[in-house]
Amino acid sequence: MAIDYSNITTIGFDADDTLWVNETYFREAEEEFGRLLEDYETRNTVDQELFKMEMRNLKLYGYGIKGFVLSMIESALELSGNKVSTQVLNRILEIGKEMIEHPLELLDGVEEVLRSLHGRYRLLVLTKGDLLDQERKLEKSGLLDYFHHVEVLSDKKPGNYLRLLEHLEIPPAEFLMVGNSLRSDVLPLEEIGAKAVHVPFHTTWAHEEVDPASHSNGHLTLGKLTELLNYV
Amino acid sequence: MAIDYSNITTIGFDADDTLWVNETYFREAEEEFGRLLEDYETRNTVDQELFKMEMRNLKLYGYGIKGFVLSMIESALELSGNKVSTQVLNRILEIGKEMIEHPLELLDGVEEVLRSLHGRYRLLVLTKGDLLDQERKLEKSGLLDYFHHVEVLSDKKPGNYLRLLEHLEIPPAEFLMVGNSLRSDVLPLEEIGAKAVHVPFHTTWAHEEVDPASHSNGHLTLGKLTELLNYV
Repeated sequence: MAIDYSNITTIGFDADDTLWVNETYFREAEEEFGRLLEDYETRNTVDQELFKMEMRNLKLYGYGIKGFVLSMIESALELSGNKVSTQVLNRILEIGKEMIEHPLELLDGVEEVLRSLHGRYRLLVLTKGDLLDQERKLEKSGLLDYFHHVEVLSDKKPGNYLRLLEHLEIPPAEFLMVGNSLRSDVLPLEEIGAKAVHVPFHTTWAHEEVDPASHSNGHLTLGKLTELLNYV
Repeated sequence: MAIDYSNITTIGFDADDTLWVNETYFREAEEEFGRLLEDYETRNTVDQELFKMEMRNLKLYGYGIKGFVLSMIESALELSGNKVSTQVLNRILEIGKEMIEHPLELLDGVEEVLRSLHGRYRLLVLTKGDLLDQERKLEKSGLLDYFHHVEVLSDKKPGNYLRLLEHLEIPPAEFLMVGNSLRSDVLPLEEIGAKAVHVPFHTTWAHEEVDPASHSNGHLTLGKLTELLNYV
């Protein structure tokens, strides 16, 4: 049975890996981090330990590049038994700065989709992560004029969405979220009675992966963003 | 001549060093940082170089503890000619975590002032810095119920205030900002035709200091927050 989108008035877009590339740069950074520490541990162990460190620090640092860099530094000290060279530590700081300054790459079809939906729906950007970083990326994207409102959330749990929709006076039943993360952009929306469309990116951060058994089937999954125009 | 506050409908409060202590912890961290590096440079040089590093990184990292910690690490590597011990670097990471987890200390009279104004004015919190950090502090403060809206801004320039007031549909002439920083909480408000009350905190970060010649005299300066109740 087709899902009915006829009562939707407002469409929210996730930003990282939905409007533009993001996860790819984290993966490249992780790969270089692995090479920098290959004297101490295997690539696989380095990967695993860095991820564990990020999870341990997530409650303190939240999402974003700065917390990631702090976790890389802590992990480098730990994995090397405090033997890591200052050269490696300087390079880790530099990797972070390169990530922050990385040119923005819009994903295919983003501009076309926003141009088509603009005026017919109220369009929002709902992203999590670092406030300054996300503002900078939106600025670079040239997409700001398409959006009625931009909100950077500290997390994307059902409560975060509910509070925001209430503040903007949007009934959840009239709201459709579009994003690449089942955990952040799809499941919490179903929980609050809104709709969601999943557009997977080729790379997903392990933290955003969910147990397949927890998937509801109340959402549409698309191969690419432009297919959204067949439904709304 | 007394300033007329009779048309004010909305009062915005800065958070750090206006509602609760903040700068003190940065100063304590800087003092410990100076002691950690005393083998390499005088306290005074360490202080100056750390501040320069923060200013160099501000555009990339923005405000907040994580950027401060990254600048301390970079500064420690630089000041020591890459000779700093991993023990010192581990301690710097720990200082950052202690800052993030520091218990919240409300400033004198805050609760009394908010209780008195609540219901008579629309109250906002307008703070800059790290989103997660500020949300966590507001949560800890127990003050959330007094506020109509909380906004974490990436900066407090006239344009940031203008966009927010427009979004909340508040005419600048009806808005009064209360805060400890002339640079962030007072001067930009005067520039956009709003009013501002300055309540200095005993410690001001050098970045927030302004050239005395740039002060307008259109604002009230109070010795403590409770005096605000004599005016509104």
